[in-house]
Amino acid sequence: MNRSNGGPPHRSINRSADRGVARSATGGDVAAESRATSDFLQLDPRDAPRGGLSDWLARQIRGAIADGRLTVGSRLPATRALADELRVSRGVVTEAYRRLTEDGHVAGRGRGGTVVVAVPQASTGSGKAPVEGAARSRDVFTAPTDLGTFDAVRAAAARIDLSPGLPDLAAFPRAAWLRAERSVLARLTPSDFGYGDPRGTPALRAAVARWLSHNRGIPAAPDDVMIVSGTAQALRLLVDVLHADGITRIAVEEPGSLGVRQHLRPLDTPPVPVDAHGIRVDALRATGAPAVLLTPAHQFPTGVVLGGERRRELMDWAREGGLVVEDDYDAEHRYDRPAVPALRALLPEHVCYAGSVSKLLAPALRLGWLLAPAAYRDALLDAKRLVDLGSAALPQLVLAHLMDSGDLERHLRLIRKHHRRRRDAMIEAIGECLPGAVVHGAAAGLHLTITFGEDAYDGSDADLATAALARGVKVHPLSWHTQLPHAPGLVLGYAASTPTEIAEGVAVLGQLL
Amino acid sequence: MNRSNGGPPHRSINRSADRGVARSATGGDVAAESRATSDFLQLDPRDAPRGGLSDWLARQIRGAIADGRLTVGSRLPATRALADELRVSRGVVTEAYRRLTEDGHVAGRGRGGTVVVAVPQASTGSGKAPVEGAARSRDVFTAPTDLGTFDAVRAAAARIDLSPGLPDLAAFPRAAWLRAERSVLARLTPSDFGYGDPRGTPALRAAVARWLSHNRGIPAAPDDVMIVSGTAQALRLLVDVLHADGITRIAVEEPGSLGVRQHLRPLDTPPVPVDAHGIRVDALRATGAPAVLLTPAHQFPTGVVLGGERRRELMDWAREGGLVVEDDYDAEHRYDRPAVPALRALLPEHVCYAGSVSKLLAPALRLGWLLAPAAYRDALLDAKRLVDLGSAALPQLVLAHLMDSGDLERHLRLIRKHHRRRRDAMIEAIGECLPGAVVHGAAAGLHLTITFGEDAYDGSDADLATAALARGVKVHPLSWHTQLPHAPGLVLGYAASTPTEIAEGVAVLGQLL
Repeated sequence: MNRSNGGPPHRSINRSADRGVARSATGGDVAAESRATSDFLQLDPRDAPRGGLSDWLARQIRGAIADGRLTVGSRLPATRALADELRVSRGVVTEAYRRLTEDGHVAGRGRGGTVVVAVPQASTGSGKAPVEGAARSRDVFTAPTDLGTFDAVRAAAARIDLSPGLPDLAAFPRAAWLRAERSVLARLTPSDFGYGDPRGTPALRAAVARWLSHNRGIPAAPDDVMIVSGTAQALRLLVDVLHADGITRIAVEEPGSLGVRQHLRPLDTPPVPVDAHGIRVDALRATGAPAVLLTPAHQFPTGVVLGGERRRELMDWAREGGLVVEDDYDAEHRYDRPAVPALRALLPEHVCYAGSVSKLLAPALRLGWLLAPAAYRDALLDAKRLVDLGSAALPQLVLAHLMDSGDLERHLRLIRKHHRRRRDAMIEAIGECLPGAVVHGAAAGLHLTITFGEDAYDGSDADLATAALARGVKVHPLSWHTQLPHAPGLVLGYAASTPTEIAEGVAVLGQLL
Repeated sequence: MNRSNGGPPHRSINRSADRGVARSATGGDVAAESRATSDFLQLDPRDAPRGGLSDWLARQIRGAIADGRLTVGSRLPATRALADELRVSRGVVTEAYRRLTEDGHVAGRGRGGTVVVAVPQASTGSGKAPVEGAARSRDVFTAPTDLGTFDAVRAAAARIDLSPGLPDLAAFPRAAWLRAERSVLARLTPSDFGYGDPRGTPALRAAVARWLSHNRGIPAAPDDVMIVSGTAQALRLLVDVLHADGITRIAVEEPGSLGVRQHLRPLDTPPVPVDAHGIRVDALRATGAPAVLLTPAHQFPTGVVLGGERRRELMDWAREGGLVVEDDYDAEHRYDRPAVPALRALLPEHVCYAGSVSKLLAPALRLGWLLAPAAYRDALLDAKRLVDLGSAALPQLVLAHLMDSGDLERHLRLIRKHHRRRRDAMIEAIGECLPGAVVHGAAAGLHLTITFGEDAYDGSDADLATAALARGVKVHPLSWHTQLPHAPGLVLGYAASTPTEIAEGVAVLGQLL
């Protein structure tokens, strides 16, 4: 729980615009030798504020990643070596790396050292990521408002599907599922086949409460949990309840998920910019919206983690009456950083928390959970009754069995390995085929977001996605997931494709650029 | 298909008020001998209109059942014997019995002969079924508007549960289900575990189309079928779409299901009386409602079948622009009469058809289907996307397998036998323990409705249900399922209870009266 306000306390990384080019001349003779051997970012600890060496170091490295001096895939110096170079204690470097890891910018690779895995979202005035996309022509994928958009793209034939949002589906634990189903069917009483509690079966609500306590640090009792048919339904129920409550606006992250925005209809969704620390709470305040939907653990699509300071600001906003809807859509998928604690754990009476097994097991299961402040529960229960009288019982009981038996945990460990390999394959392919692309959010999740500087690509990403689809490769244009003008980009899922498919798909993108 | 306007052509059974008491004096010497032996309703064929002997005979018998001269469980004379008595051809009697069977009033019992199984809904001015219930005190079960009503009653502990709406849950085909699941899991491709068609899996939509064509006489293509999470969700989606279309009222049957009415919120539900032939279409017209929800095959809760003339009137109303929502909730459960064709088969472009497996297999599966006129399909698909992006795929595929393999058909035959035995046990118990009760709708379905004349019980049925629950027996008061004042009554499910439980439960009711 004391990780809840973790993350770096930096409010800005403007100082990193300092490229240190002129430093070598002022370094003095003492450091001359080590400078010559390391040359790592021309860092000079004498620039650091007193007592803030780790902060300062993390900030410098983050700035270097943001402006492209350190590219994704490049290795940081070993902690001992860098400490020696900088003549600081090794703990300073370890702490800085820890913060960067927590933020998802770098990742420990065991003997492979510490590697850059993600670029902070454009926030440093680095000159890249121009905001001119609005004037560009867009066609097939342009500003989709039709609810059928996803179905249409899903139905489109493609040799390689790099749509985001899917885990490794080939790894679905069929044998464990069937075993669990047999066990469940053997135990059921006749009345279990009748109409059940619309909030979900007691067994699954208990299992989810334990899962969330254990895996997400959320203290939860079974009565806190309502089982829903995926996060889509959780949002639908919330919208019904909020709308009936007179709420007409819910702020969303910018960029942010198109699918989520569709599910928030008919509420207005004022966009709030996300920077390297997550959603900008000052901008959230400025919208005047009474509620906000967030993806704090791994922002979709940028992969940014909501920073500690932002969390504090957000919790202040919530305590003053704001409602936070936390979409914890892929928090279990992390590779190079510790788990990011859920907002729900901090302020349960101000946070609606939604999660699902869509990215743990399979979207086809249509199972998820919603934890809401007590004040909303009765209305949410009525809304659930109206939409379906409760989710199907058998799959709930099978899932509970998988959670309780440890099968789900084992499955998660297995696919995490697959996903990591696939992510690495994608980063490698991008490095080879898309040299102008900047990779975001690689430390966790099931997808990468790439953006293009003007040098690399100045067309519309919708055109690019359309052309890729014509070549048999399915990707999301970043513009799908934006409401405001934005640099062109693509959102690329890697988790459901093999390394070979990934390499091929990215190669096709490279040919198109 | 030529059964579609089946059912008896009688418009009224007022003539059955003729009790024939004085007939014996006018019978003449010719019939005296046979009258003396049969004395069956003191029938005199000379009262019959020319060429309408079968009609007349059916009407006389129906009247006798309605006014209590023939009670549920009593046996009609053998066709040959009655033909001899009446000096008519045997075909006249056979045809009259056929019509009564079709209406669900009597049932063939093989060697057991033809037995009265259901009373026409109060419509004959017989002096019973007074409409004074409004003034009576009601408490726990009174005019429930809270959506939690059903959950509260379901959660209440009871030794014997005679709530209507459940099939024999102990017979759930666990082995067949597991077999089908194994087969499905073995065949699935990884992408089957992803997000699917929100209308349902192609396999189940095809299987449902075949099932409906075969079992319900509905010509249906897979594209006509949308898979939903039970009829509750079908109604919810329809309400969303109709409401968005500016429709604010949908007429419902009176009496009619409370659960259905709850799911039609926020639409107004003007009540339209049901008589022995089903909903009164003249009264429907009088409401001015643009849509109506019906249970034509086995009206809930009365068990009345929508008659042929009424069907024609209703189809006229629909052709003039009315929208019919057909809730075919338990059409597969019939014991003593042929299948009643679905309205959807007659006029697909004016009928939304909803069905589910809740009463075929188990409500816990939360699987059903909705067939809508083409004009509503896109909007319904959007509504389905919003509520859950589609129902869970695995149970859909297992169900499709059970339908295609014949397992579901076999299951239906099995539970039909169980249900018939249980129904008979309930009728027998009612005959023994509730002599003043009139039984309705026994020819089909999963429940009986009983009403009480003033002599038998003049309290409120909500009080009776409350008292029964206190004695460990769960039943629905008929008043739950009415919007207008109505004679007190109970709705008693028999399908999910053993004959012993049924006998015990009804005995408790008898003690309370």
